[in-house]
Amino acid sequence: MTTTLITGGMVVSATGRALADVLIDGETIAAVLAPGSTLLGNDLKTSVDKVIDATGKYVVPGGIDAHTHMQMPFGGTEASDTFETGTRAAAWGGTTTIVDFAIQSYGERVEDGLAAWHEKAAGNCAIDYGFHQIIGDVNEASLKAIDGLLDEGVSSFKLFMAYPGVFLSDDGQILKAMQKSASTGLLTMMHAENGSAIDILAQQLIADGKTDPYYHGIARAWQMEEEATHRAIMLANVTGAPLYVVHVSAKQAVAQIATARDAGQNVYGETCPQYLYLSLEDNLGAPGFEGAKWVCSTPLRSKEEGHQQQMWQALRTNDIQMVSTDHCPFCMKDQKELGIGNFSKIPNGIGSVEHRMDLLYQGVVNGHITLERWVEITSTTPARMFGMYGKKGVIAPGADGDILIYNPNGHTSIGYEKTHHMNMDHSAWEGYEIDGHVDTVLSRGKVIVDDNAYVGTKGDGQYVRRGLSQYLI
Amino acid sequence: MTTTLITGGMVVSATGRALADVLIDGETIAAVLAPGSTLLGNDLKTSVDKVIDATGKYVVPGGIDAHTHMQMPFGGTEASDTFETGTRAAAWGGTTTIVDFAIQSYGERVEDGLAAWHEKAAGNCAIDYGFHQIIGDVNEASLKAIDGLLDEGVSSFKLFMAYPGVFLSDDGQILKAMQKSASTGLLTMMHAENGSAIDILAQQLIADGKTDPYYHGIARAWQMEEEATHRAIMLANVTGAPLYVVHVSAKQAVAQIATARDAGQNVYGETCPQYLYLSLEDNLGAPGFEGAKWVCSTPLRSKEEGHQQQMWQALRTNDIQMVSTDHCPFCMKDQKELGIGNFSKIPNGIGSVEHRMDLLYQGVVNGHITLERWVEITSTTPARMFGMYGKKGVIAPGADGDILIYNPNGHTSIGYEKTHHMNMDHSAWEGYEIDGHVDTVLSRGKVIVDDNAYVGTKGDGQYVRRGLSQYLI
Amino acid sequence: MTTTLITGGMVVSATGRALADVLIDGETIAAVLAPGSTLLGNDLKTSVDKVIDATGKYVVPGGIDAHTHMQMPFGGTEASDTFETGTRAAAWGGTTTIVDFAIQSYGERVEDGLAAWHEKAAGNCAIDYGFHQIIGDVNEASLKAIDGLLDEGVSSFKLFMAYPGVFLSDDGQILKAMQKSASTGLLTMMHAENGSAIDILAQQLIADGKTDPYYHGIARAWQMEEEATHRAIMLANVTGAPLYVVHVSAKQAVAQIATARDAGQNVYGETCPQYLYLSLEDNLGAPGFEGAKWVCSTPLRSKEEGHQQQMWQALRTNDIQMVSTDHCPFCMKDQKELGIGNFSKIPNGIGSVEHRMDLLYQGVVNGHITLERWVEITSTTPARMFGMYGKKGVIAPGADGDILIYNPNGHTSIGYEKTHHMNMDHSAWEGYEIDGHVDTVLSRGKVIVDDNAYVGTKGDGQYVRRGLSQYLI
Amino acid sequence: MTTTLITGGMVVSATGRALADVLIDGETIAAVLAPGSTLLGNDLKTSVDKVIDATGKYVVPGGIDAHTHMQMPFGGTEASDTFETGTRAAAWGGTTTIVDFAIQSYGERVEDGLAAWHEKAAGNCAIDYGFHQIIGDVNEASLKAIDGLLDEGVSSFKLFMAYPGVFLSDDGQILKAMQKSASTGLLTMMHAENGSAIDILAQQLIADGKTDPYYHGIARAWQMEEEATHRAIMLANVTGAPLYVVHVSAKQAVAQIATARDAGQNVYGETCPQYLYLSLEDNLGAPGFEGAKWVCSTPLRSKEEGHQQQMWQALRTNDIQMVSTDHCPFCMKDQKELGIGNFSKIPNGIGSVEHRMDLLYQGVVNGHITLERWVEITSTTPARMFGMYGKKGVIAPGADGDILIYNPNGHTSIGYEKTHHMNMDHSAWEGYEIDGHVDTVLSRGKVIVDDNAYVGTKGDGQYVRRGLSQYLI
Repeated sequence: MTTTLITGGMVVSATGRALADVLIDGETIAAVLAPGSTLLGNDLKTSVDKVIDATGKYVVPGGIDAHTHMQMPFGGTEASDTFETGTRAAAWGGTTTIVDFAIQSYGERVEDGLAAWHEKAAGNCAIDYGFHQIIGDVNEASLKAIDGLLDEGVSSFKLFMAYPGVFLSDDGQILKAMQKSASTGLLTMMHAENGSAIDILAQQLIADGKTDPYYHGIARAWQMEEEATHRAIMLANVTGAPLYVVHVSAKQAVAQIATARDAGQNVYGETCPQYLYLSLEDNLGAPGFEGAKWVCSTPLRSKEEGHQQQMWQALRTNDIQMVSTDHCPFCMKDQKELGIGNFSKIPNGIGSVEHRMDLLYQGVVNGHITLERWVEITSTTPARMFGMYGKKGVIAPGADGDILIYNPNGHTSIGYEKTHHMNMDHSAWEGYEIDGHVDTVLSRGKVIVDDNAYVGTKGDGQYVRRGLSQYLI
Repeated sequence: MTTTLITGGMVVSATGRALADVLIDGETIAAVLAPGSTLLGNDLKTSVDKVIDATGKYVVPGGIDAHTHMQMPFGGTEASDTFETGTRAAAWGGTTTIVDFAIQSYGERVEDGLAAWHEKAAGNCAIDYGFHQIIGDVNEASLKAIDGLLDEGVSSFKLFMAYPGVFLSDDGQILKAMQKSASTGLLTMMHAENGSAIDILAQQLIADGKTDPYYHGIARAWQMEEEATHRAIMLANVTGAPLYVVHVSAKQAVAQIATARDAGQNVYGETCPQYLYLSLEDNLGAPGFEGAKWVCSTPLRSKEEGHQQQMWQALRTNDIQMVSTDHCPFCMKDQKELGIGNFSKIPNGIGSVEHRMDLLYQGVVNGHITLERWVEITSTTPARMFGMYGKKGVIAPGADGDILIYNPNGHTSIGYEKTHHMNMDHSAWEGYEIDGHVDTVLSRGKVIVDDNAYVGTKGDGQYVRRGLSQYLI
Repeated sequence: MTTTLITGGMVVSATGRALADVLIDGETIAAVLAPGSTLLGNDLKTSVDKVIDATGKYVVPGGIDAHTHMQMPFGGTEASDTFETGTRAAAWGGTTTIVDFAIQSYGERVEDGLAAWHEKAAGNCAIDYGFHQIIGDVNEASLKAIDGLLDEGVSSFKLFMAYPGVFLSDDGQILKAMQKSASTGLLTMMHAENGSAIDILAQQLIADGKTDPYYHGIARAWQMEEEATHRAIMLANVTGAPLYVVHVSAKQAVAQIATARDAGQNVYGETCPQYLYLSLEDNLGAPGFEGAKWVCSTPLRSKEEGHQQQMWQALRTNDIQMVSTDHCPFCMKDQKELGIGNFSKIPNGIGSVEHRMDLLYQGVVNGHITLERWVEITSTTPARMFGMYGKKGVIAPGADGDILIYNPNGHTSIGYEKTHHMNMDHSAWEGYEIDGHVDTVLSRGKVIVDDNAYVGTKGDGQYVRRGLSQYLI
Repeated sequence: MTTTLITGGMVVSATGRALADVLIDGETIAAVLAPGSTLLGNDLKTSVDKVIDATGKYVVPGGIDAHTHMQMPFGGTEASDTFETGTRAAAWGGTTTIVDFAIQSYGERVEDGLAAWHEKAAGNCAIDYGFHQIIGDVNEASLKAIDGLLDEGVSSFKLFMAYPGVFLSDDGQILKAMQKSASTGLLTMMHAENGSAIDILAQQLIADGKTDPYYHGIARAWQMEEEATHRAIMLANVTGAPLYVVHVSAKQAVAQIATARDAGQNVYGETCPQYLYLSLEDNLGAPGFEGAKWVCSTPLRSKEEGHQQQMWQALRTNDIQMVSTDHCPFCMKDQKELGIGNFSKIPNGIGSVEHRMDLLYQGVVNGHITLERWVEITSTTPARMFGMYGKKGVIAPGADGDILIYNPNGHTSIGYEKTHHMNMDHSAWEGYEIDGHVDTVLSRGKVIVDDNAYVGTKGDGQYVRRGLSQYLI
């Protein structure tokens, strides 16, 4: 087993920062030490196999992206990143764990869905990966299957209030699944949009000749998200289920979550980089069909209404607890193009798995969040929320050697022509400039990205068996 | 310098827990290591001066009590604990740092007040201590003096909306002091009760023959606290000052703080053990004059109205961020007795500095908070809030060796006859039973409490120079 | 045409009271005059056909009960009051107008439903009557039919979020109907309970052997009403429809309505006498099957949780604007008894049409509301809300001579054995004592109740063609 | 005694409108009759002394302006309208009653203050007038004097949280006065601004060279109003006093009032025309010293922040119940000019008593409020709020013949050069165009304004003895 010493860096946790050295023994962190690389008189640098000098840099727990959709079937096509390409891109961006979604589709068995996703991922990943389980068909068998998920290392399942006829569960089904959530402790994840009403609005817009990508954002009005968020909270309230609302984008939905939390209910919310930076006007409303790049659900919100600023604030106030990407890439060619002339046929999704750590770090530079909060919302809370803390999300003895060495004096230009590594023919982030750089990434003690090169191997990543949420209050 | 190794314990932080060893070199933590006491093949146990076996116990950062009043003059008498007796009692209870209040009284210079308190404390303390500065007379000179406080290691000052004619600042004075708070970054601490109205209510009750201690709680109605809390928040809003509300006891005051926080304002709240466990009915309303034991301001609140349960909830939801004691002990004899026949003459204060860690740990046992939250609200957040983190509030390399080894299988009976160590002739906590025990306490690497004995020396404690708050969001 | 003079009474309106005489010429009020029965020197008493001495009594606009279900089919049986018996009972209680619900059932035409209800009522009523239209099947034809309703004198239609498979409209259907509401100005009335979730809860309770009437209230938890109320508000928000929530019973639903109203949205709420006086514990929870008397939806709420007091408060603060009965009587024998052993089979409904004016007047006596507010919530606001004001809801020239002479020195004992006039074999109000009495009732100038006798004729009542709401703000 | 018949008009009340004739016998309304001017066969037109044809016009209760300051001493000068000029201007504008403020200044007796104001007004007024009592010095004698006010026809007193050293009462004084309010039922009126903090802000701005009128609005920040409003509400809450907040201008203060009202507390709010139409940017911020015209307290608020739109909304939702003017005119020359170079020396006040009915009617035209709401907020509610209803605020038998005949087809241009009748050398309303016109005004049955001429006599107006509020809920 290799021993590695990271010296001279500023180790940052969710609560503070200090100069310290980190010793990794094999795959696991063995010690965090006062800087100077000596311990009780022993010079550690000479005792280890490898020394990484992190002077002037931040040493932080590797990023955890708890919401990705690699090679997911959607609307007759499939998300363009495989587990191989997607996790490699993640590694490039300083993310060392993803949690993807295994899908039980209508009429299928939960166990088969999970097995299918294991098959897609196994042996292909650059970094560690876990699974949430999508329950697309709540019935007697799938409810029973929930009881077995924790043994499989899956401690959360996702339901949809959107997409009638595909993934949507009606309120009776949600109630039953949430009762399971309450009895097992598994976290209910919710796509909270009123799909029944949205589909009517979308049909009406299209019938009206309003077919451009922009109208995707009009059909999925904030009221539709606020409503479903509130409904999910009340169903959680009556059942006692812990609730995690995915991809929150509307400030009014944030308000619903904040109110429930102030009342002591176990409700959490995740947002995504796109809801912090991008907007209905600037992006979905781009000329012609270009807006299709930014068609995702929940949709980008109006800048004029100030959702983006409110979302940064919610990250500060912990009304929103963490940031994932909802990475679900589609190429323009042959994929997004399916929706030319009909926005409702554009595959929903934005690719960001590579850029999350950078984009959020820029929030530190811009004064939106502290450095410690950056670590918390990108790694520590995701680990706690989804039952991986201790192994992931922290730099401490016993934890996996998943470490990002981030250079605050570096610079990163994001976008397609500047060579991102996701399997997409465009970038949603073209032109974003970051005042920092992912210098080195270690996954379980092994350097996989260094000096602008990927030096890992397909299959480095292992499946992470997750326990119950460690964040429940 | 002595080297000490704490082995086999469960090290608990604000975000999680793991078995780990802690190596202390002199006064400072040198390393946190994977359990087993070896590093790169070296057996550390044989290399250190002292090994403490913490197997089966929690190893947590020493408690920080950010609100104490040792030997404070009040109402013609003086708080009965000196810095010597008070800090020794704190040590007995697992607290390794206090932040006391230096007082500038009316007509005095701030610098003189601070100097006087340094004199009281220097050479007498069992544990480290810092100072907040009470500004009892906001005027041109005292406002100017605020500029110099940070250089003195004082990063917070306290104002009073209560006690007209003694400490009360009017709103214009508060505004000016808060402008200083905004410009210097020093935290404004606020005693938020409407003193002008309270004094009238108290006079009326006494004139009405309602002189028992119980009426202390009636005069200081929750509306008086809610109102002042809101007022402080608005004055902070208009000035941009960061605000920390001390000893929050009314659920309605919590609601005001929560609302301001959800709106993104830098407002914090502290509560005290008495507001979590004790009540207007059971304690202040005790027969005869016994209620005097629990006369403190803000007062104990009605159990029937549910303030106590709401306060535990607010600790869970982080609407209240930390717990201090407001330790301000008075004996019944010659002190509390000053108010026989007139509750308004009872010296205000309860002694709890010895019991805070135990009482809050019982909240873990009772299911109110998690073990991690216990560490957060008793040590990590106080350290961050008051600019001591890194040195205090965390078990990490570079931090002071301030460590509490807490035994979850131990037991502690609280109360006078069962020998507490505060200089009081009674206990506000008589009869409280704790399912845990303070086994060992280290202050800057030195064991000062062990095996139910105080083994430290008067003067062990040093003055802590504090920086600006590290908690501001 | 008969001329009638009501002399000496205290005429009460929604805004105030004054001694005044009322002159009715035929069916219509001709003048309101200063007391004394002279005008410009003419002694009116000698000029009119009939003089009614109302000295010492209140002269108020006849009650308007805007929510009744006469002979409504429900669960395989039919509400036990016909339009004949029900309207006669209403007259006994001082109500001179009802608005009943014509029903379009699934698969039927709206026009046919309305015609059927006209047929039931025509020639049978003791007092005037109007119709709301229930849309039980939102589809292209029924949406088109909404456009024609105003011409039929129907200015409001009702949708259901409860009763899946019977009346429930899904959110897409609600959206479409609300768009019609917004474009036509017709008021959307909503039964706001989450039927999908409730049905699951009910099934689970029954499967669990919890079959007593009490569990009707458990299955229809307050969260189910609060949720649906919020959802209806958001759907109204996105469409711009004016919304009227029927039979509000949960204080949390009131809070949702209040919040929307404070934000300027056109949302209204109605409550019923049962939600002001009766409770889950005392009534639904009565021993054995007796609770079935009080099975209605929304259900009676917990007294311990304080919904009833909050509802009185909401009437005071105008967060709830009016009180109807939701009169839907079923006998115990052969009707309520259908649900022995299965609460979900108990026909839903309580009979109160006779007692509303009395029960609400008792609220004046008990200090819950003012005398003026009594008139407002029982007559003036119902008239304004549903487009009848001017003709109904006010004592003023040009208005119909619908007048209740109420005696504050009289007394009324309510209940079956004390001879109510509704076609029921029991009373939900057995034992209620009222400190007032319905002395005389005039409908369009004709005395129909006087001196404890019904002196009207079947068919006195005419259909009221209603206009758009006059209450919209 | 003269008899007058107003025929053919549309009589509008707070709840509705109908064509009706109004018969006035001497000073009092004798009857409201169906249109046609016959009663039981008698042609009334031939029986009366005077017939006024109101065909095509609105017949509404004369306006009640419940907040005026005629010839009030302020800052070394005196409001420029005497009771004679001010009430005549009011009459021109359709207002038939004012309630002015008698002042007890510091060191004076309440009785003397009231007597002094009676002396100023008696024999000078064009319309009826009442008095509120300002308590400028809360002490044992003035508290006792409150007990006698109702016998004097004064049912409300006003306190100030602004103007330290002049009118400001501290919170203890407010508490004591509110206890009187609770025990007597007299309404507490509150000028809710934090004067202590405002004065500091103003001093700092001036010291900083920011002396223009614009900075009046900056010093009196919305936080200062919101805070004081909340404080007044809490003091009212603890004492049980009914509270009426004068001249509400900040939307955040409205929110405080709405929250208290939703919680069932008896709290009311008044706004003024200037807060509906004028703004910090457009008016206070006018070039040079022109902004002085609009210096009043509370100040005009920022248009960009949307206070004006929120205030219209609050009028619709009844979160604000009525509109007065706070008429307090000062000429530019010799008066406003006192503050050249120092905004804090500009006499506070705007003159609007002549324009209130017009300006609010324009709100009807612009779609902000309904015609009925116009009557309610300008006459009916002021009458109910301040204990004059029955005599004032309604067109009904027994009421004073205070009637405004308003022509919706007329037009009114407001402003100085276009000849307003207030004693001012400028107008705050220059250039406002109104789509309506005050055609005829009757005060107690006597026509005092007609055909653009004032036809009344000095001294027509009498003192109105007011009773307790009839609006309390």
